[in-house]
Amino acid sequence: MDLTLGIDLGGTNIAAGVVDASGKLLIKESIKTGAERGAAAILADVGDQACRLVADMGESGKDIRAIGIGSPGTPDNVHGFVIYSSNLPFRPSTPIREILQSRLGIPVFLENDASCAALAEARAGAAKGALYAITLTIGTGIGCGIIANGRIYHGFNNAAGEFGHSVLIPDGEPCPCGRRGCFEMYASATALIRETRRAIARHPNSMLRRLSDEAGKSGARTAFDAMRAGDPVGTAVVHDYIRMLSEGVTNLINTLMPEVLLIGGGVSNEGESLLIPIREFVDQNAYYGEGVPHTRIERATLGNDAGIIGAALMASDNLTS
Amino acid sequence: MDLTLGIDLGGTNIAAGVVDASGKLLIKESIKTGAERGAAAILADVGDQACRLVADMGESGKDIRAIGIGSPGTPDNVHGFVIYSSNLPFRPSTPIREILQSRLGIPVFLENDASCAALAEARAGAAKGALYAITLTIGTGIGCGIIANGRIYHGFNNAAGEFGHSVLIPDGEPCPCGRRGCFEMYASATALIRETRRAIARHPNSMLRRLSDEAGKSGARTAFDAMRAGDPVGTAVVHDYIRMLSEGVTNLINTLMPEVLLIGGGVSNEGESLLIPIREFVDQNAYYGEGVPHTRIERATLGNDAGIIGAALMASDNLTS
Repeated sequence: MDLTLGIDLGGTNIAAGVVDASGKLLIKESIKTGAERGAAAILADVGDQACRLVADMGESGKDIRAIGIGSPGTPDNVHGFVIYSSNLPFRPSTPIREILQSRLGIPVFLENDASCAALAEARAGAAKGALYAITLTIGTGIGCGIIANGRIYHGFNNAAGEFGHSVLIPDGEPCPCGRRGCFEMYASATALIRETRRAIARHPNSMLRRLSDEAGKSGARTAFDAMRAGDPVGTAVVHDYIRMLSEGVTNLINTLMPEVLLIGGGVSNEGESLLIPIREFVDQNAYYGEGVPHTRIERATLGNDAGIIGAALMASDNLTS
Repeated sequence: MDLTLGIDLGGTNIAAGVVDASGKLLIKESIKTGAERGAAAILADVGDQACRLVADMGESGKDIRAIGIGSPGTPDNVHGFVIYSSNLPFRPSTPIREILQSRLGIPVFLENDASCAALAEARAGAAKGALYAITLTIGTGIGCGIIANGRIYHGFNNAAGEFGHSVLIPDGEPCPCGRRGCFEMYASATALIRETRRAIARHPNSMLRRLSDEAGKSGARTAFDAMRAGDPVGTAVVHDYIRMLSEGVTNLINTLMPEVLLIGGGVSNEGESLLIPIREFVDQNAYYGEGVPHTRIERATLGNDAGIIGAALMASDNLTS
């Protein structure tokens, strides 16, 4: 059996697991990143974690043929290091591939984490079988992984997929990237929470305010809950949020025409409350000529495992290409 | 010698030529489309044109191994017809491949015209050698061709590349596509002319107005000419235009990270007056991590021949894939 090991490097946790050729996750393990300790300490832990997983597989451990690492930022798979990541202390001076390869004795490959998640969904998740697929992960920010012709699209510098930093409103909300009005500033969970708080401030007697007070905070879910309970203030917040998210999704579809566009991350837990209006908007607004097949819009299904599975499948792709 | 024949179907003209494997255009010929005559009459003319070109090549005519057709709208290369085009009367009921293949006796392949132009530039033009390249053609509308890993990126339905219909200003200028505030409504030559006229109406004593009156009309060049002559009104029009164009270019770069992004079409004749401020804007605003290589922004060099050359090279790619 052909197996690979996938490692999903995150700012908070590092999740790793063993995956078969079909994308099935056999075992997994998560450890704390402790990013403040620096690259060497993190990589020592990652090496330990990989060794434990190999050992846990018992006899099948010898079938693990490669390690795939999904990292935030811009990994460089040619040179085997991370060029830049805002969440992790890896830089070109840390030879990730060399360190792990010498420790585990099998090839190590690197890729962006959002790209790995998109690959997992296109091979073993909600976009299974689609040669052109995009996964938008909506959380604190917006991740975007693009699959083209069945493979990860990473651009010439491995830095593609920053669709979250497409300006949708020139001179709009300031974004940490330096621009103003980025898609991420309107369509991330962070943006939804910001608008929920602003609406509460404007409408101190609203049900939205009451729900927020009862929960002790405004979350990404608060406005959706208020909407489902019939509150007009919550409904307006959700309506405006979905409108901006849908404008961005339509922009992406017009540009790249994936067969399937998936939405993952915390906000996707709203399910059809989120997806139905997005589909309606896209069907009305996307630039499909008469008779041209439309993109399917679904929820991502692999959740947090997508990063591990995609990193492992990416390693397998690298072995055979 | 391996040769292919490229045909660039346009709403006004149909340009065709014979191209070698390096992308060199050996001979070409242009005829009027006469779109109002319907698909059968146009295809008869295209067949005549192709036969003339083969004959004109003399002894080398027998080296022409395939025909590539670049068409506006959404061609379907699997079934050999155009699914939809707003400028031409071709629909699935017109078996373009079958008709031309039976007449010429060599394989016929179809592709979107903007994609063909991008392929030509990436093989034989200003993006030569780049595996990831984008060509934006700025004219009446905005064409966008995407090259990924050396091949045309056409999405699952061959309709990718409608980046011109990305909304940049929600609720902005109404667009014929049905949305409001599309990039094309701010960055096309049409948009530049519209803003020039509006500025003239607001500033009837401006040099911009005088230049326009002298020329008998406001063109895409008028505001640039006024700017170069020191007119503040023309300068403001150009400044606003380039800002919106640059926002869109930056969005595209953040999403797709091409090695080279080319600007073609009429407005690109402004050369460095256009390119220098775009490059400055992109370098300041694009989401490149520290140490990550930047996209080069250049002018497309193949002009109107790009469509013919790209269609021919696309046919060659289809033969060998």
